[in-house]
Amino acid sequence: MDASRANQCIGVFDSGLGGLTVVHRLMDELPAERIVYLGDCARVPYGTKSAQTVRTFAAQDAAFLMRHNPKLIVAACNTASAYALEHLRGHLPVPVIGVIRPGVRRALAASAGGPVGVIATEGTIASGAYQREFEAMSPGRTVLTGSCPLLVPIIEEGRSEDDPIVLAVLSDYLHALQRERPGVLVLGCTHYPLLAGAIGKLMGPHVELVDSGHAAALAVKTYLGEQDLTRGEGVSSLECFTTDNPQRFASVAERFLGRAVRAPQWVGTDELMCQTVEDS
Amino acid sequence: MDASRANQCIGVFDSGLGGLTVVHRLMDELPAERIVYLGDCARVPYGTKSAQTVRTFAAQDAAFLMRHNPKLIVAACNTASAYALEHLRGHLPVPVIGVIRPGVRRALAASAGGPVGVIATEGTIASGAYQREFEAMSPGRTVLTGSCPLLVPIIEEGRSEDDPIVLAVLSDYLHALQRERPGVLVLGCTHYPLLAGAIGKLMGPHVELVDSGHAAALAVKTYLGEQDLTRGEGVSSLECFTTDNPQRFASVAERFLGRAVRAPQWVGTDELMCQTVEDS
Repeated sequence: MDASRANQCIGVFDSGLGGLTVVHRLMDELPAERIVYLGDCARVPYGTKSAQTVRTFAAQDAAFLMRHNPKLIVAACNTASAYALEHLRGHLPVPVIGVIRPGVRRALAASAGGPVGVIATEGTIASGAYQREFEAMSPGRTVLTGSCPLLVPIIEEGRSEDDPIVLAVLSDYLHALQRERPGVLVLGCTHYPLLAGAIGKLMGPHVELVDSGHAAALAVKTYLGEQDLTRGEGVSSLECFTTDNPQRFASVAERFLGRAVRAPQWVGTDELMCQTVEDS
Repeated sequence: MDASRANQCIGVFDSGLGGLTVVHRLMDELPAERIVYLGDCARVPYGTKSAQTVRTFAAQDAAFLMRHNPKLIVAACNTASAYALEHLRGHLPVPVIGVIRPGVRRALAASAGGPVGVIATEGTIASGAYQREFEAMSPGRTVLTGSCPLLVPIIEEGRSEDDPIVLAVLSDYLHALQRERPGVLVLGCTHYPLLAGAIGKLMGPHVELVDSGHAAALAVKTYLGEQDLTRGEGVSSLECFTTDNPQRFASVAERFLGRAVRAPQWVGTDELMCQTVEDS
């Protein structure tokens, strides 16, 4: 094993806080890793922005992580995975793992055949990325999609799963999907696991929910294991950076991470712009 | 009258599309003006971001407008007005009109005494800017506030005023305000006029709604008239810039502006960062 490479960190970026659900899973699956996280909270959300804008922002986020000499970068944002993964892979000297392919692979493993469902942001659905991955891995499979623009702001507002507005919005979005009865439903946004209980109740027990972020964490574990790059020993660590107010980041982070975040650091978007993926 | 100065444009910026409701009013009140608009759609919303981030973005937006040699700049975004107006006034060589003071003045003129209400984004309410303006102009007045984080995404999603989710969310936010029965309610976000019908119905006929953007347009008219800077003759024009996809801007703009927008132009956020207010 290349111990010095194994000791390098895993870089994770997201449009904001949602990616911490992926970090949560990474810390459970790989308990000795060093993780550096960037949440672009000053420019969140990505899910309603254009492909070009998301690609530009994702490239800046990844370039920032490169300064920390990672062994691997995780694009923990579904919209960034949908629009920017190919671009990042073409320009970065380290492997990049997104959340979409792992989510699709896990959904197909859990499905007994028949239609599969995906809910995600406007941008992720419009990109067609999930549809293309399903078609590549299971040609002809019926893929039911639903874009859910209000779920991210509803979750960020801190509403609970039994809030009547949360239930009304979910019913509105899931209505068509409920009728089609897919065997699995991919939660194609890293925020959505926070509403998994309510989504599960509305879809019913015959629908298995697949958390794309958890699937990505498992894909990272497999990759590191295969490449002999798992950090087997040592104390895990999580260093967080945000482009908006670090106090606010710290106060909301626990809901996504399941534990407190220590001293997140501010990095300005102007600093992110000083370096692009091409430079790194 | 200084004809050459009167011929200069009015620069208007907003976090996104909402400021077009202010442009709509400006075009009605001042039919011969040239308007240059910047919507920072790549970084929208501002209403959930920190004071420092909003101040940085607003300074960049205003610096971009300065390149068009305006006679006046309008901060059409309530959150930018709340957090950045003083900073902009301290650094720009032209007058800057925000939406908060005009809204407060108009609310007080419409109020027969008693409590006044304001609904706005999280950032605008948290800044205390409305509360301070009311206190300065009408000391001791009871000011009831409500922050409504979901209204902007709901409006941007395109839901109509009679959509059950729109009504449920409005009822939730307006519940406490309804009980207190303020004589006026300031719509302290440029998006909210699109839901004025539903808000008016929920609040009842005894509550007068004040559109802060309309109030700002009237303040611009008064200022230009007093300074002899009104462009009295000539064809009006509107030139739009956006930091995100111009096609999307054009397709959604009509809902806010009441008419079609011609050929909006893209300007990258990296280009905005090349110049700050201090440089202009």
